[in-house]
Amino acid sequence: MKIKYELIKEEKQSKARLGKIISKYGEYETPMFMPVGTQATVKTLSPEEIKEIGTGIILSNTYHLWLRPGEDVIAKAGGLHSFMNYSGPILTDSGGFQVFSLAKPKDITEEGVTFKSHINGDKLFLTPEISMNIQNKLGSDIAMSFDECPPASANYEYMKKSVERTLRWAKRGKEAFNNPDQCLFGIIQGGYFEDLRKHSALETVKIGFDGYAIGGVANDNESKEEMYKAIQYSTPYMPSDKLRYLMGVGDPIDLIEGVIRGVDIFDCVIPTRLARHGHAYTKYGKINLRNAKYKEDFSPVDDCDCYACKSYTKSYIRHLLVAGETFGSRLLSVHNIYFLHKIMSNIRTAIREDNLLEYKDKFIKEYYGEN
Amino acid sequence: MKIKYELIKEEKQSKARLGKIISKYGEYETPMFMPVGTQATVKTLSPEEIKEIGTGIILSNTYHLWLRPGEDVIAKAGGLHSFMNYSGPILTDSGGFQVFSLAKPKDITEEGVTFKSHINGDKLFLTPEISMNIQNKLGSDIAMSFDECPPASANYEYMKKSVERTLRWAKRGKEAFNNPDQCLFGIIQGGYFEDLRKHSALETVKIGFDGYAIGGVANDNESKEEMYKAIQYSTPYMPSDKLRYLMGVGDPIDLIEGVIRGVDIFDCVIPTRLARHGHAYTKYGKINLRNAKYKEDFSPVDDCDCYACKSYTKSYIRHLLVAGETFGSRLLSVHNIYFLHKIMSNIRTAIREDNLLEYKDKFIKEYYGEN
Repeated sequence: MKIKYELIKEEKQSKARLGKIISKYGEYETPMFMPVGTQATVKTLSPEEIKEIGTGIILSNTYHLWLRPGEDVIAKAGGLHSFMNYSGPILTDSGGFQVFSLAKPKDITEEGVTFKSHINGDKLFLTPEISMNIQNKLGSDIAMSFDECPPASANYEYMKKSVERTLRWAKRGKEAFNNPDQCLFGIIQGGYFEDLRKHSALETVKIGFDGYAIGGVANDNESKEEMYKAIQYSTPYMPSDKLRYLMGVGDPIDLIEGVIRGVDIFDCVIPTRLARHGHAYTKYGKINLRNAKYKEDFSPVDDCDCYACKSYTKSYIRHLLVAGETFGSRLLSVHNIYFLHKIMSNIRTAIREDNLLEYKDKFIKEYYGEN
Repeated sequence: MKIKYELIKEEKQSKARLGKIISKYGEYETPMFMPVGTQATVKTLSPEEIKEIGTGIILSNTYHLWLRPGEDVIAKAGGLHSFMNYSGPILTDSGGFQVFSLAKPKDITEEGVTFKSHINGDKLFLTPEISMNIQNKLGSDIAMSFDECPPASANYEYMKKSVERTLRWAKRGKEAFNNPDQCLFGIIQGGYFEDLRKHSALETVKIGFDGYAIGGVANDNESKEEMYKAIQYSTPYMPSDKLRYLMGVGDPIDLIEGVIRGVDIFDCVIPTRLARHGHAYTKYGKINLRNAKYKEDFSPVDDCDCYACKSYTKSYIRHLLVAGETFGSRLLSVHNIYFLHKIMSNIRTAIREDNLLEYKDKFIKEYYGEN
């Protein structure tokens, strides 16, 4: 069964939308943050822990799974859900972003991208058709179009050509796509250029997808304002009855600003990556738990209902981190994902009560300590 | 409340004993395997996972906790149970074994041992009194005497002198020990020399402890037969109404052979260490999950009721290990500890039914594939 999206309510103060994802695993409200399980596991966590946190969709990376263990292994296992024992919705990206950010493309042609594996240097070739085929085999609930991801710093001429190529790749992908139980989402590119974003959005919608994403803002955005503008340039042309996904964005304030501009779902590796480096979100900003000042701090990381905060102190987590024990980053992963999950929950309440801008002001004052 | 031991039954065929540990956390049957949480965490696992596996006592290392985070931090946290959020019995060793195996002693005098920290090379000094003081502050349920741990290859003359020193240290430790809620166990040394084991056992029992351990067999034992003999030389002189603990031993067959010779409790880092290296116990022997032959093996690690085997395949766990994801070693840690826990459970059943030697033969045939 394909995932469905239902718009419940638009906020009065902003473009924020309250919605609902209906899947065979259950219903999940949007706006929503999706934790990332790059290699068919959300780093350090079990599926049960993800469920306990309460998030809905998780994301997994086509590029990584294609290389290891290979999509055929996962298909033989009965698909990604079965392989990783996750009975909730899964979104797979197309591999495009990783090819451009991690593997560094050797050659981009109309047909596809030649690049080197980041694992062993093997020469690899990815096209829209291959990406769709891999994602069909993985059996995710939402697959993504294969797009070119040029650096945000690319000039207008390059970006214009790239947008056209991404549109041609989107069409080819849609034609090759062959799994009636999966959604396929189109991706809007165009950097920070208003006319390119508009063009990309209109033409992508013309091709027709089950949902739409805004790409090209996750890496090297020059400033948050640039990123917010790129969202604003895109969302007006995205259909209101389809999910809107801002790719690779997870900074707390960006979640709020994204929702205000009409985004429904987000993903980012940041909560688990911060955890592995010993950092935790708190309502008063990020803290580094490795700091010596927490050595005898027997209070929880934050005033929070997550498993880590209910049972463990800063002192203990700091000890685990300093001693190199993985249970430390596991506890912080739980907390950091829960923190973003809780923000999304607060955002949904604020949309219901039409006071999202007040919520944003309150959040900023606490989080950044501004007056 | 101090832990109490009750002997329930002695097996007819061997010296095996079925017993019960009564603690404020509940009752636990012996023989029992104790997982090791060196740094106040059983590597990769949560306290809830340990409880779900069903083991009773866990062990933590005084030497490591003394160095990091320091016994005063843990005392301020309310003791080790509170610090690590573990509501079950905890045994702490004395630091002696680590001083001799990990830190390499610089100087052994009657007063104590001077050695270098394995973390930063700091010069440190440990005595029976200091070890007792640290363990009192940690607040474990069972503390261990501070003993000299000479290499098993030490000659008779050295071993004889060492046994005498360990006896003097045991007396000093008992006098310095100062926590009425903690048990203190004495340690029998003497290498592979029958008369030294006997002397050490008799004299240690004369000093009088809440339980007794057999030390000096965990490292560099020349052969399993030597180790089994050292146990046989010791247990006849250990009181039947007190717990008997074989230190640092966890190989499946050694658990069975130890119980046959009258041992009640065991500890070893081996199940979690094997897990981190990708190895799993199965009833047909150890396997290396990183092996390519498991790439498309969608069966569980073993015919087993643990969390890992109920929900995950060899193929998935292999993928996690190869991809460097810690969830892989976490799943194998659960499985390997459960495997030893299950052996102990089978041993207890066999003692009840007076057929432990038959169980041993059956186990060996399956595990080692002998006919």
